[in-house]
Amino acid sequence: MSQTLITPRTLKGFRDYPPAIMIPREAMMDTARRVFRSFGFAPIDTPVLEYLQILTGKGSEETDRQIYNFTTRGGREVAMRFDLTVPLARFAAQHINALGTPFRRYHIAPVWRGENPQSGRYREFVQCDFDTIGTESAVSDTEVIMVVNRLLNELGFDEFTISINNRMVLSGLLEKLDLIEKTTDVLRCLDKIGKIGREAVAKEMVDSASVTSDQANQVLALSDLDDEPESVLDSLLEIVSGSETGVQGVERLGEVYRSAIASGVSPERLRLDVSIARGLDYYTGTIFETTLDELPGIGSICSGGRYDNLASLYTKQRLPGIGGSLGLDRLLAAMEQLKLLPSQSVSAPTMIAYFDKSLKEDYLKMSSQLRSAGLGIEMYPDPKRLAAQLKYADQKGFSHVIIAGDREWQNGEVQVKTLATKESHTIAYQHDAFEELARFLGSTIAESE
Amino acid sequence: MSQTLITPRTLKGFRDYPPAIMIPREAMMDTARRVFRSFGFAPIDTPVLEYLQILTGKGSEETDRQIYNFTTRGGREVAMRFDLTVPLARFAAQHINALGTPFRRYHIAPVWRGENPQSGRYREFVQCDFDTIGTESAVSDTEVIMVVNRLLNELGFDEFTISINNRMVLSGLLEKLDLIEKTTDVLRCLDKIGKIGREAVAKEMVDSASVTSDQANQVLALSDLDDEPESVLDSLLEIVSGSETGVQGVERLGEVYRSAIASGVSPERLRLDVSIARGLDYYTGTIFETTLDELPGIGSICSGGRYDNLASLYTKQRLPGIGGSLGLDRLLAAMEQLKLLPSQSVSAPTMIAYFDKSLKEDYLKMSSQLRSAGLGIEMYPDPKRLAAQLKYADQKGFSHVIIAGDREWQNGEVQVKTLATKESHTIAYQHDAFEELARFLGSTIAESE
Repeated sequence: MSQTLITPRTLKGFRDYPPAIMIPREAMMDTARRVFRSFGFAPIDTPVLEYLQILTGKGSEETDRQIYNFTTRGGREVAMRFDLTVPLARFAAQHINALGTPFRRYHIAPVWRGENPQSGRYREFVQCDFDTIGTESAVSDTEVIMVVNRLLNELGFDEFTISINNRMVLSGLLEKLDLIEKTTDVLRCLDKIGKIGREAVAKEMVDSASVTSDQANQVLALSDLDDEPESVLDSLLEIVSGSETGVQGVERLGEVYRSAIASGVSPERLRLDVSIARGLDYYTGTIFETTLDELPGIGSICSGGRYDNLASLYTKQRLPGIGGSLGLDRLLAAMEQLKLLPSQSVSAPTMIAYFDKSLKEDYLKMSSQLRSAGLGIEMYPDPKRLAAQLKYADQKGFSHVIIAGDREWQNGEVQVKTLATKESHTIAYQHDAFEELARFLGSTIAESE
Repeated sequence: MSQTLITPRTLKGFRDYPPAIMIPREAMMDTARRVFRSFGFAPIDTPVLEYLQILTGKGSEETDRQIYNFTTRGGREVAMRFDLTVPLARFAAQHINALGTPFRRYHIAPVWRGENPQSGRYREFVQCDFDTIGTESAVSDTEVIMVVNRLLNELGFDEFTISINNRMVLSGLLEKLDLIEKTTDVLRCLDKIGKIGREAVAKEMVDSASVTSDQANQVLALSDLDDEPESVLDSLLEIVSGSETGVQGVERLGEVYRSAIASGVSPERLRLDVSIARGLDYYTGTIFETTLDELPGIGSICSGGRYDNLASLYTKQRLPGIGGSLGLDRLLAAMEQLKLLPSQSVSAPTMIAYFDKSLKEDYLKMSSQLRSAGLGIEMYPDPKRLAAQLKYADQKGFSHVIIAGDREWQNGEVQVKTLATKESHTIAYQHDAFEELARFLGSTIAESE
């Protein structure tokens, strides 16, 4: 049967995850789930496809350009979600009265954006979002910082910086400078300070946000503040004095900072950075970004903030809250490029060699018994030469191979070969006495980890 | 600011998963992952969007009608995956030489089909697929049965039936009856026997597959066989005698059945059912279906089989294999309807009441310490009346609430209230001695589970 082959390939900007990358990716998702749950965040899921109108209700032009949308056969205008916040807003408007507040949810799921693919950035990527809805408490602001701190620790990072700010500090200053109506433009410029530097931002503020050069300098003075948090807070109080909003912002910023430290977050991991603005205009209070000291080039890997009203497009019910988002796939891609991923490409650490055809059913039974004892066991499926099976085991990265021929079987024992050391141990095994083998494997695997 | 609200709703055939359903759904996915891994299956992921041509290369007309496809802004014809098998075939054609065989992968991910929504069936649903590629060994066939058996046990089901057949048995019979060219039509009819009954199937075979009524009866005689496996195998050998294919099929069927029993699968969970055909024409050997004895109405929840050549559309490399697919969301929906889901809507079993405003930082620190001890702790975010906080805790389903006011704090203790029994215990706690509280919570939570 001859036919033209279809070239197997993925779309531009999309990628496959083979086991060597998917195993650490699943481990990262597990870690995120465990950390979110330990704070009482509960999982939700929403459809990938939503009504286009729901997803673009408040979208920026940029979002609208990047969204994957289409008309279904039934004539509905639909789109694939481009973040997890808009679906949460729709979800909250629909279900919050049944769920009650405070409502803490996490959502770990892919989103799609048709942006130009760059190194380490794909058009499909998993985000890990967590939000507390229905409270304005500073406890929830503090907890967001605690979650990020614990999350990065558990993901294996020691050196990272969580930069915290409060939008009200900025608003207070803009109020004093009479720039409130230019807030969005000014903040958009300010957000670029890390990328293009102070001077370029000042120029852009004057050119595109039409502020005076003096006003621009007063805004940018925020980025000159000392590094010592208590002295930053004192300076800020002066800078915003006279603006009630500004003073409230500085007070909340101080409260969140001090509570985070009191809860056990190391002061070395925290930074007050009043120049971060987080472009999105729905933030109204605490905002934060997180950078890895070892990988500054990838930008913020976990960001978020407080909003006054999550779901105003869909409901009149006011829903304040605060949340954050870990860019899991972006972090994974960066770790992959920098060869920071643990190398593990097998799911089960032990392989049973299929050594003697007449013992097939015995191997199957042994595999089943060891699995019941909580061990991961892969049986080689074909009775090939032992050398070929051991080569497979080596290349895949198993830690142990169980080898048992007729002779061992008759003696009530098996050989366990440790691949790293090439040592072999003879261990007692019979179908009605598999505990010793299970114990041996359990303890040597635990040691080698 | 007055504006028209957008009605918050999901598309027809799509659904939200609130915590009460998402918590058991995540638990089911965790269980599937754990079981797959214990057999050495490794995770992969592939893009939701693929080139339309890749997804529909071998699709049936029905698949093509149900697929969500569209043209991107860049002019590419793309589609959302409608199963996990076609993406696996594309993935294998692209990567199998780098990965090596035997290759065992699992893939737990949503798929989309624009079919008419029915009770318990949605247009977006998660499937859990597992496949072993690159071997024709009966060990892999047997392992599929072992995986399904362990999976359902671990998901909490005791009463289920895995029905096994082999396509070669059917092919052998059709060969003898000179019906080989009508295979697809005959099997499509035969597949309906569970739904419409033997007589209707016989009629349909005559009417739509143009076989004689005698031939139809000989095919349908397969469903009359005795229930005792060894006698079924004997009868089958007679039925297909003379057809080499048929004899090979009966032998493999017997081997897989006996090996599964030898590995520890209970004979009560297995059934040889030579009338199951699995509509898809790519199956060539062992095929199986799984029904829950308690929920027969939902049909097969885990099915699959052996194929000769997975990726022939994309590569000349022959890739035989065998796999199965658990319809996780369909099973979940059935369990939900029948109220079989465990009721749990909190992620963390213990709540700290925010009782005394002056102790905020102390509560935060306590929560952090207990989390570091491996406990799930939610702190109530607002210093509301205790009664309101306890009501929230009750409604949400927490098991314990930690209550500590100024007096307790000064005595170096806290109250732990068990909500189910309304008992309170006084437990020692200080910031530098939290171990007793952690131990108490750990042991009482373990008890109450």
